[in-house]
Amino acid sequence: MSPLSLISPRTLKGFRDHLPESMLLREKIIEIARCLFQSYGYAPIDTPALEYEEILLGKGSAETDKQLYRFEDPGGRRVGMRFDLTVPLARFAAQHIGDLGTPLKRYHIATVWRGENTQRGRYREFIQCDFDTIGTQSLVTDVETALVIHDLIVAVGFDRFKIQINNRKVLTGMLEQLGLRERATAILRVLDKRANIGRDRVAAEMVASSGVTPKQADQLLALSDLSGTNTEVLDQLERLTADSPTGVEGTAQLRQLMAALEAAGVPEIRVQLNVSIARGLDYYTGTIYETFLDELPNIGSICSGGRYDNLAELYTRTALPGVGASLGLDRLLAAMQELEMVDKIATPAEVFVVYFDGERLHDYLQLAADLRNAGLRVEFYSDPKKISQQLKYANRRGHRLAVIAGSREFESATCQLKNLGSGDSQAVSLADGPGELVAAIRRQLAE
Amino acid sequence: MSPLSLISPRTLKGFRDHLPESMLLREKIIEIARCLFQSYGYAPIDTPALEYEEILLGKGSAETDKQLYRFEDPGGRRVGMRFDLTVPLARFAAQHIGDLGTPLKRYHIATVWRGENTQRGRYREFIQCDFDTIGTQSLVTDVETALVIHDLIVAVGFDRFKIQINNRKVLTGMLEQLGLRERATAILRVLDKRANIGRDRVAAEMVASSGVTPKQADQLLALSDLSGTNTEVLDQLERLTADSPTGVEGTAQLRQLMAALEAAGVPEIRVQLNVSIARGLDYYTGTIYETFLDELPNIGSICSGGRYDNLAELYTRTALPGVGASLGLDRLLAAMQELEMVDKIATPAEVFVVYFDGERLHDYLQLAADLRNAGLRVEFYSDPKKISQQLKYANRRGHRLAVIAGSREFESATCQLKNLGSGDSQAVSLADGPGELVAAIRRQLAE
Repeated sequence: MSPLSLISPRTLKGFRDHLPESMLLREKIIEIARCLFQSYGYAPIDTPALEYEEILLGKGSAETDKQLYRFEDPGGRRVGMRFDLTVPLARFAAQHIGDLGTPLKRYHIATVWRGENTQRGRYREFIQCDFDTIGTQSLVTDVETALVIHDLIVAVGFDRFKIQINNRKVLTGMLEQLGLRERATAILRVLDKRANIGRDRVAAEMVASSGVTPKQADQLLALSDLSGTNTEVLDQLERLTADSPTGVEGTAQLRQLMAALEAAGVPEIRVQLNVSIARGLDYYTGTIYETFLDELPNIGSICSGGRYDNLAELYTRTALPGVGASLGLDRLLAAMQELEMVDKIATPAEVFVVYFDGERLHDYLQLAADLRNAGLRVEFYSDPKKISQQLKYANRRGHRLAVIAGSREFESATCQLKNLGSGDSQAVSLADGPGELVAAIRRQLAE
Repeated sequence: MSPLSLISPRTLKGFRDHLPESMLLREKIIEIARCLFQSYGYAPIDTPALEYEEILLGKGSAETDKQLYRFEDPGGRRVGMRFDLTVPLARFAAQHIGDLGTPLKRYHIATVWRGENTQRGRYREFIQCDFDTIGTQSLVTDVETALVIHDLIVAVGFDRFKIQINNRKVLTGMLEQLGLRERATAILRVLDKRANIGRDRVAAEMVASSGVTPKQADQLLALSDLSGTNTEVLDQLERLTADSPTGVEGTAQLRQLMAALEAAGVPEIRVQLNVSIARGLDYYTGTIYETFLDELPNIGSICSGGRYDNLAELYTRTALPGVGASLGLDRLLAAMQELEMVDKIATPAEVFVVYFDGERLHDYLQLAADLRNAGLRVEFYSDPKKISQQLKYANRRGHRLAVIAGSREFESATCQLKNLGSGDSQAVSLADGPGELVAAIRRQLAE
């Protein structure tokens, strides 16, 4: 029945299969994120992968427009595949906020597609994990956003990281103070280069391209010069922005936010005021978050976000302020791999039951069912092949324990429990049901 | 900043947003499926939403080809969106089976897209939950597939359902016996209509269109006439197929399967031999499964699958036999709604903390953190609005309990715990930390 010529099995450039080992880890992290979001009362939503092209083109930048997968559907509609979860959220909120009411706390974990340049090691398909609170300007939600970021990174297993926090109002206030508010976009674009080209060249470029005086440039750069403890930075900020109501407000919000995070139990060492982060030019209007791992700062921010004034202005006249952040799943997984935080395991089942004696199928099925009923995850091998071959399979997959029994064992109501890591075996009685075996398995798994 | 004309916020025809209430249920069912698959040692995989068009067109029927969302990507490649998880599995297996080895037990829970006729109430985007074991012909995996279906439907919350089981070899054997093997496709197509048009018209149509004699038609229909207990049906089958080795094999496999399911603890009432189910004409070659709810048989099969001889023949010369099934998530959810098995709840958090006193933010944050650290899911309201307004929000979302405290309560280390279902309140002490409150909450949630 085989056709004469085969179709070459391959994936598209920039796309990838996820094999069990990688997928188990991805599912685990996503499950941690889901539980964490839920523990703060965020509820899940989902939106279609395909949207009307005009919806997707509406809000994206020129760059995202270029990367959009778009086409004409069989019904002749111009459609596109979502490139982020923010545009769909804006469309969703405009459509449903009347029914759902505010505040709306939602998380959205879903795949997005971008026709990226793959040479930078980027993929064209990836998962985003976003959470947002929409419909309130209360600083409590800014506090909660930072708490969720903190608890999430801890829950994933990291101990040493820093949530860097800024408030756009501080910079806006400084620009107001210097009479440079209208030139904000151009100035911020130059200011963002500071880490790359250094203070002096930024100052020179500002003067040359954005029409600021050397003194103004110096005052702007003084903001990103600030250093010291968070309290010291706040005190300095208060002086620097004292002449602008916007700046005063931004600094006050930062101070409240810091105090609230401390009250909620976030270790001070994990929160850092950083007046130089801006995260894009137009979208964010208040608090801004970025999260860096102490051991791998160069991997970039693994969880970023901020507060915005108007989420859905393209789709509704209702002003929808909000605050939220997005977990960078692929970066996080890359970091976990680099820091050797992950086991090489390709099976979810801790226990492997060897199929030793073909005549005893019913006994094996009963035993496996008993172990599953006790809450264990159990793989039963499919064919009564040689034990060595089955154990090789079990080792390769990463099962931790093997249960071995043949006719003789079943007749004397016993079995062997083999630890596939150490190679040690012990005899366990089945005379009083599976209880003793379950207990022995749990003991070994707990080790 | 608002643009003069708004973009109308809407979804494409056949696509839908999932709001929190529906999404919470979907996530819960998917989580149950994931855990169940894992408890049998199935491991997750994922594949890209986009594949080369030639891969997707290769295996699909004329109908799926027509429904395929396909287009030219920015790089000039002809691509399409996956319309099921079987074709991607075949491509995946051809590509990776050498590395992964067999047996390969995988589950795949992912979105697929079909440009269906939406008038039949179908959606163009839906989730499939597939599980398969590839690379072995052992009947043990047929047994396990039925066990997974059984345990999954029980885990979701159903008590009364039937897994209908057949084996394609029985019908193939009968056709062989009658010298009709070559006309199998045409005959099966007519036979499949039996439930709709009745025995006599099927017999007449077989004679007219497929060139079988009236006697042959009668013998074929005798198969689907079989009734009685599973054992009675097996005994009759044995006689009817005795002259065909294929038929004898199919009947023997059915007998072994039934006995093994009983040994594994599946109640007999939930398994039913049904010789008339065929599930498509070419793909399945052995055991076949369909699952019907006793209370809603007309909703169709909620979990179906079967055994196949050669999964990936279009992509590799390696023969890959396998067996698996697919959970019909949308049908299952529709059934749960119709049977009123679902709560109308739009929040994952059981506990709602009222933000009563704006001066006490730090106390609320601490209290909420304490409750979360005890494993509870807690939403803290964002603004210190009127209590009545906050409780209205909490009732609407479906929070079960509200914790209410103001300055007076915090000073005397106490709070009110209000059951939002019954309206009852009780005072709970916070004097010795959050332990007493956690215990009171757990008691009420357990009721």
